[in-house]
Amino acid sequence: MNIQRPEEECGVFGIFNHPEAANLTYLGLYALQHRGQESCGIVSSDGSALHAHKSMGLVADVFSNQEIFKNLPGRAAIGHVRYSTTGGSAIKNVQPIMVDYSRGSIAVAHNGNIVNAQMIKDELEAYGSIFQTTMDTEIIVHLLATSKASSLLDRLTDALGRIKGAYCLLLITETRMVAARDPHGFRPLCLGKLGESYVVASESCALDLIEAEFIREIEPGEVVFIDKNGITSNFPLKKVAPTPCIFEFVYFARPDSCIFGKNVYQVRKELGRQLAREYAIDADIVIPVPDSGVPAAMGYAEESGIRFELGLIRNHYVGRTFIEPQQSIRHFGVKIKLNPVREVLKDKRVVVIDDSIVRGTTSRKIVKMVRNAGAKEVHVRISSPPTSYPCYYGIDTPNRKELISSSHTVEEIRKYITADSLGYLSRDGLLNAVGTNNTDYCRACFSGDYPIEFPMLKPAPQLPLFDKELPE
Amino acid sequence: MNIQRPEEECGVFGIFNHPEAANLTYLGLYALQHRGQESCGIVSSDGSALHAHKSMGLVADVFSNQEIFKNLPGRAAIGHVRYSTTGGSAIKNVQPIMVDYSRGSIAVAHNGNIVNAQMIKDELEAYGSIFQTTMDTEIIVHLLATSKASSLLDRLTDALGRIKGAYCLLLITETRMVAARDPHGFRPLCLGKLGESYVVASESCALDLIEAEFIREIEPGEVVFIDKNGITSNFPLKKVAPTPCIFEFVYFARPDSCIFGKNVYQVRKELGRQLAREYAIDADIVIPVPDSGVPAAMGYAEESGIRFELGLIRNHYVGRTFIEPQQSIRHFGVKIKLNPVREVLKDKRVVVIDDSIVRGTTSRKIVKMVRNAGAKEVHVRISSPPTSYPCYYGIDTPNRKELISSSHTVEEIRKYITADSLGYLSRDGLLNAVGTNNTDYCRACFSGDYPIEFPMLKPAPQLPLFDKELPE
Amino acid sequence: MNIQRPEEECGVFGIFNHPEAANLTYLGLYALQHRGQESCGIVSSDGSALHAHKSMGLVADVFSNQEIFKNLPGRAAIGHVRYSTTGGSAIKNVQPIMVDYSRGSIAVAHNGNIVNAQMIKDELEAYGSIFQTTMDTEIIVHLLATSKASSLLDRLTDALGRIKGAYCLLLITETRMVAARDPHGFRPLCLGKLGESYVVASESCALDLIEAEFIREIEPGEVVFIDKNGITSNFPLKKVAPTPCIFEFVYFARPDSCIFGKNVYQVRKELGRQLAREYAIDADIVIPVPDSGVPAAMGYAEESGIRFELGLIRNHYVGRTFIEPQQSIRHFGVKIKLNPVREVLKDKRVVVIDDSIVRGTTSRKIVKMVRNAGAKEVHVRISSPPTSYPCYYGIDTPNRKELISSSHTVEEIRKYITADSLGYLSRDGLLNAVGTNNTDYCRACFSGDYPIEFPMLKPAPQLPLFDKELPE
Amino acid sequence: MNIQRPEEECGVFGIFNHPEAANLTYLGLYALQHRGQESCGIVSSDGSALHAHKSMGLVADVFSNQEIFKNLPGRAAIGHVRYSTTGGSAIKNVQPIMVDYSRGSIAVAHNGNIVNAQMIKDELEAYGSIFQTTMDTEIIVHLLATSKASSLLDRLTDALGRIKGAYCLLLITETRMVAARDPHGFRPLCLGKLGESYVVASESCALDLIEAEFIREIEPGEVVFIDKNGITSNFPLKKVAPTPCIFEFVYFARPDSCIFGKNVYQVRKELGRQLAREYAIDADIVIPVPDSGVPAAMGYAEESGIRFELGLIRNHYVGRTFIEPQQSIRHFGVKIKLNPVREVLKDKRVVVIDDSIVRGTTSRKIVKMVRNAGAKEVHVRISSPPTSYPCYYGIDTPNRKELISSSHTVEEIRKYITADSLGYLSRDGLLNAVGTNNTDYCRACFSGDYPIEFPMLKPAPQLPLFDKELPE
Repeated sequence: MNIQRPEEECGVFGIFNHPEAANLTYLGLYALQHRGQESCGIVSSDGSALHAHKSMGLVADVFSNQEIFKNLPGRAAIGHVRYSTTGGSAIKNVQPIMVDYSRGSIAVAHNGNIVNAQMIKDELEAYGSIFQTTMDTEIIVHLLATSKASSLLDRLTDALGRIKGAYCLLLITETRMVAARDPHGFRPLCLGKLGESYVVASESCALDLIEAEFIREIEPGEVVFIDKNGITSNFPLKKVAPTPCIFEFVYFARPDSCIFGKNVYQVRKELGRQLAREYAIDADIVIPVPDSGVPAAMGYAEESGIRFELGLIRNHYVGRTFIEPQQSIRHFGVKIKLNPVREVLKDKRVVVIDDSIVRGTTSRKIVKMVRNAGAKEVHVRISSPPTSYPCYYGIDTPNRKELISSSHTVEEIRKYITADSLGYLSRDGLLNAVGTNNTDYCRACFSGDYPIEFPMLKPAPQLPLFDKELPE
Repeated sequence: MNIQRPEEECGVFGIFNHPEAANLTYLGLYALQHRGQESCGIVSSDGSALHAHKSMGLVADVFSNQEIFKNLPGRAAIGHVRYSTTGGSAIKNVQPIMVDYSRGSIAVAHNGNIVNAQMIKDELEAYGSIFQTTMDTEIIVHLLATSKASSLLDRLTDALGRIKGAYCLLLITETRMVAARDPHGFRPLCLGKLGESYVVASESCALDLIEAEFIREIEPGEVVFIDKNGITSNFPLKKVAPTPCIFEFVYFARPDSCIFGKNVYQVRKELGRQLAREYAIDADIVIPVPDSGVPAAMGYAEESGIRFELGLIRNHYVGRTFIEPQQSIRHFGVKIKLNPVREVLKDKRVVVIDDSIVRGTTSRKIVKMVRNAGAKEVHVRISSPPTSYPCYYGIDTPNRKELISSSHTVEEIRKYITADSLGYLSRDGLLNAVGTNNTDYCRACFSGDYPIEFPMLKPAPQLPLFDKELPE
Repeated sequence: MNIQRPEEECGVFGIFNHPEAANLTYLGLYALQHRGQESCGIVSSDGSALHAHKSMGLVADVFSNQEIFKNLPGRAAIGHVRYSTTGGSAIKNVQPIMVDYSRGSIAVAHNGNIVNAQMIKDELEAYGSIFQTTMDTEIIVHLLATSKASSLLDRLTDALGRIKGAYCLLLITETRMVAARDPHGFRPLCLGKLGESYVVASESCALDLIEAEFIREIEPGEVVFIDKNGITSNFPLKKVAPTPCIFEFVYFARPDSCIFGKNVYQVRKELGRQLAREYAIDADIVIPVPDSGVPAAMGYAEESGIRFELGLIRNHYVGRTFIEPQQSIRHFGVKIKLNPVREVLKDKRVVVIDDSIVRGTTSRKIVKMVRNAGAKEVHVRISSPPTSYPCYYGIDTPNRKELISSSHTVEEIRKYITADSLGYLSRDGLLNAVGTNNTDYCRACFSGDYPIEFPMLKPAPQLPLFDKELPE
Repeated sequence: MNIQRPEEECGVFGIFNHPEAANLTYLGLYALQHRGQESCGIVSSDGSALHAHKSMGLVADVFSNQEIFKNLPGRAAIGHVRYSTTGGSAIKNVQPIMVDYSRGSIAVAHNGNIVNAQMIKDELEAYGSIFQTTMDTEIIVHLLATSKASSLLDRLTDALGRIKGAYCLLLITETRMVAARDPHGFRPLCLGKLGESYVVASESCALDLIEAEFIREIEPGEVVFIDKNGITSNFPLKKVAPTPCIFEFVYFARPDSCIFGKNVYQVRKELGRQLAREYAIDADIVIPVPDSGVPAAMGYAEESGIRFELGLIRNHYVGRTFIEPQQSIRHFGVKIKLNPVREVLKDKRVVVIDDSIVRGTTSRKIVKMVRNAGAKEVHVRISSPPTSYPCYYGIDTPNRKELISSSHTVEEIRKYITADSLGYLSRDGLLNAVGTNNTDYCRACFSGDYPIEFPMLKPAPQLPLFDKELPE
């Protein structure tokens, strides 16, 4: 079991008091698919029992026919999408997790990462608990079940009081739905209304799809109970200064969502504008690495006055895996997704905008691709600071393990990716562009300042994970 | 959760210390497929970790390619086949169950039924346990995990000391395999050897297939530990008078197996001979209801001197479901499986041998089928006494719920199934034919004398489950 | 394309004028599944258009839900089951074949083998025809399409006049169903009635299942037209002396079927009786190789007075493929299907009855298996003469290619299979047991006397296909 | 069979003389997936035989593992992607089509539509041909097979001389690959080189992916033979003035492709610029309907000086089908794909750019969506003239059947879609923007001037297909 590093990125959605709760949850998951493409599931409540359908696969494939919804009856439902790159991706780890315990049945969907999971697991096992999955979520359920408190709120308070880390939780019992967000408020979670139904979702784009009204965000540390009598808000945990994840703005959330009080698309454009202010360059065109780099590239172009062009076209039909020729010395990994438009790039001085550099290998391929298409100069601009530290709060960095910035200077990286110039947005510039509203954001991936410490962790995360050797 | 009535019939197989443990387990499950056709699974141990593959489906479909066995490495493995007719047949209930607990990983495969399961579950939940399946097996794992004893044998003794009912268990840890049989010894379990490897299986036919040598049966109340140092036998539980299930002989076990010290095929023939002695009739031919009625019919023919014929041919290609014509007034249920041979039956006085009558509807159709094919007389002989009481020890009677014998006299049943005469083997005749060897068999399904009482049960099982109305 | 040797064994079924034609065809195919387990299909006519559903797989798997039958509307349908061991088993070769031609749409299902197929194919291609499958059936459709005759009967007469070999054909157009049997009548085909509907099937067991009345067999050389005006019989082809396939009795047909005027089960028992007369032996028990050897063993036991026992138990759950252990020196091929009953065989002199010996390898394994189970003597009796010549008329002998009898004496075979004695039914004994009724049967597989010559064949079939070396 | 109206849009790819021909063809089809998402297939040649793999589904799903490519051996391969909205989408219609004929085996992949298909089919059937699919492609193969000419070029000349319409063909035999483009050159087809291998593809983006060099387009009327001796070019058909399809620029081709001598992305931007010149408006922002409207919106923004924004975000995870809530009065069809960004649109005067309007229902929903998100004014601009006439040359307009422009004025359409203003690019503006280079483009969908007449067609296509009633 991976104890501190999140294996997964997730999205959650729930609706209470709607005749087609499961079907609307399915639509909500559709809108959150970008938060996890590996598996998904829905648990519904018919008032006296819970019903589940979950499997590996995309939402469109797992919920492929109307019959499935007949087996998900009831006026309440929660759902989950999940992405994982590790061996932990087995069917047993698909959420929501559903169990029987002393108070009946309960199902839980979770987005985030518990940093003291292994410590709690060891303790629970010492007292006789058994674990059937490798998910943090199971720990939360055990804590709920072992609490001696008499009300669900008190049991939940007990449980949440034990865990440290990032979590947005959706729970469903026979008669209630509960939404909880950790005191730091790392991940987004919002509340909406559709007629008489309450809706909770990781991002507001899921409310939009089902035409639910956005009410407000679930606040850091808030536990919301929803039942037939309506909604009640609780703040049972010790208050701390919230530190929402700034990387949701940079990369993870959908541009049409509003999170942490701001529209993502507009923030990204502003990142691009700030980047232009910090790293101006004399060039002919600005092109994004699609799709995530598009808004920042538009902002850069507006601010700099350099023309915005689509110089790389993305193929959206690419599946999870594709089969490379055996004898090929080429690696098609990037080419299968991106193709340069020669006529746009030829003889141009090109500014390429991307949201971040992880290992550097993809950026290197993109620079070569743009140059081979005829660009005279290739200037790379990144709409966030160097990503030098892994995330422990719910952004999956298994494929971000070997962070080039953790061990290399900007000039070393520029050489590696073969760009004519390279500029990262400054940390201050990032904060200015996002705008603080008196909020302190978690910027641990850039700064190494982790808002929550790791109980069992050696100093490892402070150390560079990437040695000086670079892949060819 | 169904608490006393078994939802399932099962078979288990395990092998320790063989380079192709998983593949041989798969072959063993092939041989035990008749004990459960709905789902199956294998867990292997490579010495430091457990590996699982399990799914709904027949053994041939779930283990369909060599790749699967690459993911089941190691020199030890246990497997399970399962049949269930209830909603409990979901994927989550597929065995072996595999968990992490304080002492490492463990997987359990179980054949039987725990009669005090609900009581223990309630208690475990009261102390904070959560349940992710509806299987008795999960209760056993919880008891193992909550035991404070320091050795696995002591923990297992703790656990088995708590449960009442029928069980044949196979457990596997990183370094050991354990086989346990309940003190009453309801279900069969035998021990074999293949070179340096030990093998445990529900029936000896599974040893035969892999050419393992039959050593002996695991005894009632015995707990066998197998590890790199060899095999040790333990009897940690209070001794009781064994009561193996006599119905395994009548119907459930494979005829080529030896269980409880006897060959099943020969016992079945003897049941037929005894039946001939008790219910002789002047007739032209004796025919079995294939396949289970064949040996008894052969015995009946030998003893009576009436010619044995195949008057009903079985179609072995029938799948789990088939699609009936919508507007049909016929019910093809029996016809799709059995077809009469007119030329054999025409103008004959026919004795039809079957192993048991449950609801009576199938027997009724068979009698009509035989008569329509030209039989002058149809005499039905059943190679066991009337099945009037449900089983609580591991024979699935969900589809045997409405037992016609529980509420109707033999003459009433004869009329219902439209036979010219009907004879059931007597209870004494059954015992004589099986032969006692000082063994008392569980005959609860015939007599209502249950060897283990039901802690939470109202007098329900003594009551007829079938009202006087009979289906058309 | 394999030109003379049949790649396939098949079964056909059709029904005209029934509101659930497709569903009843599906049931009919269920009953004929033993004639082909690899692929199947149904084409229905709604009066103005044809509709098809076909795929690789068993009937139960290909027609797995009611939805499929909604896409097979109409009051007429034909179906096909097929077995093939060659590369020709691709999806494109699944029958019935359905095409558009100058007179509309037509679909054809075919059981048999056209011996001059390659010659006709070459000629058709020379005139511009294209072939999309490797099936004889496509040739028949081309001949129908290229005929200039104005009526379907005349076109069919043209087509059938060109082809030589064995065929039972079912054709369906928008408004008619046609059944045709070759003049030699190699394969069985029968006519039945279900209320106002006419039914045609390869074997009578398919009529039984849907409770249709058996009317008569389609005669050799007969072409039956069925349309809204009823049924008409035609004999458009030159008459020849019929030679139905005697091997259908020995092995291929279902025992509950009546073919060529006789019940298969009773014929097989008589083969056993005759075998006992020809090759008596002093022994303790007679056991069959199940399932096909059962009736002959019963006949042998009756005639000889030696007790009939089940000494080998068959596992009916075996799938098409199973995965052998990698390092095994054993070959589980036979063991996975058959298991000896030691208690029956121990210290006994055993007569083993099988229907035929092909390569001899299976018989060798069975003899060893019986002997290892404790038999003192093993006497093998075969209820047909030595199979020395391949079939060119619709019995698949790809896996019968290396016929041990074609190159070895009975004594050599006995030694190879390690039996204490070996006896084959004599050719005269076979004919006597079947009974001639003035019918001459095709016995080419035993005698090499082929009723139809091979236009393009060198003397090959007369030569032994098996050299003197025998596999270990 | 649909005789004049294309049921399908397609893409083709082929490569000759490469050790991993099938795998590279698969990559090429990946790049052409936008031309057909319903089914796909590859046929390879190993020099002496053809091998096929084809199925319904996306390229990533149909070619899901390396094993498949082991069954597609050889140094030459052709592939096909196909989209169809009609019942003709069955598995039997998946291309390439592969047949045996008098000269051996041949496989054909086809993009286009034969307008005299029915006439030729009737004639071929009259001479005895049978048809197993409903594809034009089968007609071409029949014509090849029935030609008496001795060389493949002559047979192909015969065949192509008979057919009228649009076609880009790829043929493969045991030893050759042939590419042919109709004399009008309706669809694009280009030639590339990868080391010693020749490559042919519908669009240049497929060459880019495999890093093949673009050589030139296959010319209208050109037939290219590729074999071990290299490449030969032939022009066997009567020359006509080419009329490439201008709609490929407007909508169908990928923006990174070069077709008909121009880069698609740049043409689309120019369409947007011209649109701005023709229909200027005082507005705050310009937004595209993504993805196809993006380049034109960028051009419009550049030319007009109005800011380009992303006001609609596209969800790329949407599957082919999704399940609507049963009781919903909303139709989620557009919302599931597009979500407005309120913060961008609020209180703005918005210009929405799309490439075309078919029925008007989608445009109507988009206008409402934008207005509901807070836009003060919504001005729709279409980067092509009104689509008033169906295409008969390979652009699928089954779902474009009810063309609103065929029966309604621009003002009527504006009212229907509830826009504040509506402007279509003029026909002259379209031509100017594309640039003629002395090429006459087929603009039949806008003008009704069809370059090829319809042999069997009544005046139907000139008539409006859309009545005055409009859907709500």
